[in-house]
Amino acid sequence: MLRFEEAQQIVNNELEKTVIDRFPDELYEPVRYILSIGGKRLRPALVLMACSIFNDAVHKAIKPALAIEFFHNFTLLHDDIMDNSNIRRGHATVHRKWDHNTAILSGDVMSILSYKILSESEDPCLKDLQLLFNLTALQVCEGQQYDMNFESRMDVTVGEYLKMTELKTAVLIAASLKMGAISGGADILDAELLYEFGLNLGIAFQIRDDYLDVFGDPERFGKKIGNDIVANKKTFLLVKALELSDGELKSRLTDILGQEKIRPETKVREVKKIYQQLDIDSISAEAASAYYDKAIQYLERVHVDAHRKKPLASFAQELMNRDK
Amino acid sequence: MLRFEEAQQIVNNELEKTVIDRFPDELYEPVRYILSIGGKRLRPALVLMACSIFNDAVHKAIKPALAIEFFHNFTLLHDDIMDNSNIRRGHATVHRKWDHNTAILSGDVMSILSYKILSESEDPCLKDLQLLFNLTALQVCEGQQYDMNFESRMDVTVGEYLKMTELKTAVLIAASLKMGAISGGADILDAELLYEFGLNLGIAFQIRDDYLDVFGDPERFGKKIGNDIVANKKTFLLVKALELSDGELKSRLTDILGQEKIRPETKVREVKKIYQQLDIDSISAEAASAYYDKAIQYLERVHVDAHRKKPLASFAQELMNRDK
Repeated sequence: MLRFEEAQQIVNNELEKTVIDRFPDELYEPVRYILSIGGKRLRPALVLMACSIFNDAVHKAIKPALAIEFFHNFTLLHDDIMDNSNIRRGHATVHRKWDHNTAILSGDVMSILSYKILSESEDPCLKDLQLLFNLTALQVCEGQQYDMNFESRMDVTVGEYLKMTELKTAVLIAASLKMGAISGGADILDAELLYEFGLNLGIAFQIRDDYLDVFGDPERFGKKIGNDIVANKKTFLLVKALELSDGELKSRLTDILGQEKIRPETKVREVKKIYQQLDIDSISAEAASAYYDKAIQYLERVHVDAHRKKPLASFAQELMNRDK
Repeated sequence: MLRFEEAQQIVNNELEKTVIDRFPDELYEPVRYILSIGGKRLRPALVLMACSIFNDAVHKAIKPALAIEFFHNFTLLHDDIMDNSNIRRGHATVHRKWDHNTAILSGDVMSILSYKILSESEDPCLKDLQLLFNLTALQVCEGQQYDMNFESRMDVTVGEYLKMTELKTAVLIAASLKMGAISGGADILDAELLYEFGLNLGIAFQIRDDYLDVFGDPERFGKKIGNDIVANKKTFLLVKALELSDGELKSRLTDILGQEKIRPETKVREVKKIYQQLDIDSISAEAASAYYDKAIQYLERVHVDAHRKKPLASFAQELMNRDK
């Protein structure tokens, strides 16, 4: 089986070999750019790792892995326009480096490339892979739409947050694992168990991400603490705080969130204080742990020797212990 | 075989039956909207007509036809953002009726739906259909990029114009016919002949479109004459005029095109006058005719009885004789 770093290395080698020899450059240069500025290759690495649990011939899963990475990067190009983000992976976003139209059209072509790459797989189960890929792609768009809908709402429930996170983030991680399992020849039950492992791990991952934005070590986190607070982003922490607070505390929280001219540092400090009063830090950590535990239970039920599942278990653990 | 109007009717019935029962509405309402405000259903109708040449069981081609229509409408959503267009099919464009982000994300989901619909085809040649669909989709994006590149250039050659038009417009018409042929069980040669028929017809169609924008009857054309001239769009007429003119006439033409404050009516009148001096009207009509004739020659070579090809031949003729 493959460890994460091995899988990541294979993905990076394959991406380097993937020459996009089409024209015009104005269309394809941004595609090459977004692929060249790094990224953890988490999703395609998971495709290969899942395959390797069942089958040492991991090359069978290369096409699905690359398709997933192209699809993920397509969503980044368009999400960055929609979220008006300037920086991605420490570099200028495509719509900043070029312009909006370039980011739209290069994103489109990247999405088409993801389908093209997947269709090049010679897997006898290609139809199943495509079925899952199509559904997942729709769900990711739906998640992004829910996330945008939440921007103007202050009454988002924890249930709604979890549904959004499942769609926007977790299903692609889950589908990566299931596609890898299918490519590796897993039976349908094991493929489904890995899907559920990924779904729960994905939610745990996002809650942890939300947590680190506020309670991470700024030195290690590598970016400014409190970005989500400044943007009134409906994170697990904020949604939970709005749910748990009442009376004077709730008024104070909504008042701070409503102040347009408040200094960012003040806003972060005040909201963090309220989070601490409400125990949001430990509640979030516990919620992430609960999803992580659930994920591991699904992994344990997969019908292969425990040692073959070891790399995925270690990866999940590292993902939860990360502080950046 | 199917006449165009019959094929169009089947497409419209199928589109009405296509209920998109997914959420959230903010994402899918624009998809329902763009499909509901009409359109000639030219491409999906051609899929069915091409199938019907070889096979009376035209239901075999329904999924490819719908996939093509969804894909075409996805490109409209994004093109309208990029071209900053306010009106589509007599109604507000999606990014005007909603906003840019909505048009981006709904376009994305519509592109994914097109792949999903195609993958639902049970055609034994599905892999061939997908191969053609993927390549065509890339080409359409490439054509749009060339068209955008041309905006800032005054030295676009006729050859470049034809290449752009082939990619942006003609390949999707060609692929529609070829996909229909494949679904109808045509052999590879006949499928390819229909592709070439569509490719040449598509170029003829676009040159005719460019011609009507300037020399169409405003009463019958249904929209304002000279939109392309006002926008300095690199049409066949303009590119040809820049190629054929020299000396004082060329200076006059480039001078008019360069004037940012010129009144639109003046600009249209002056450019039209230069076109007439250069015989651009008859040159364009002849170029469209030449591509049309070439298209018909490909159609004639298709190995089925002449009477089965009649509806496609009549359709092509009507397309060229249209004055709107």
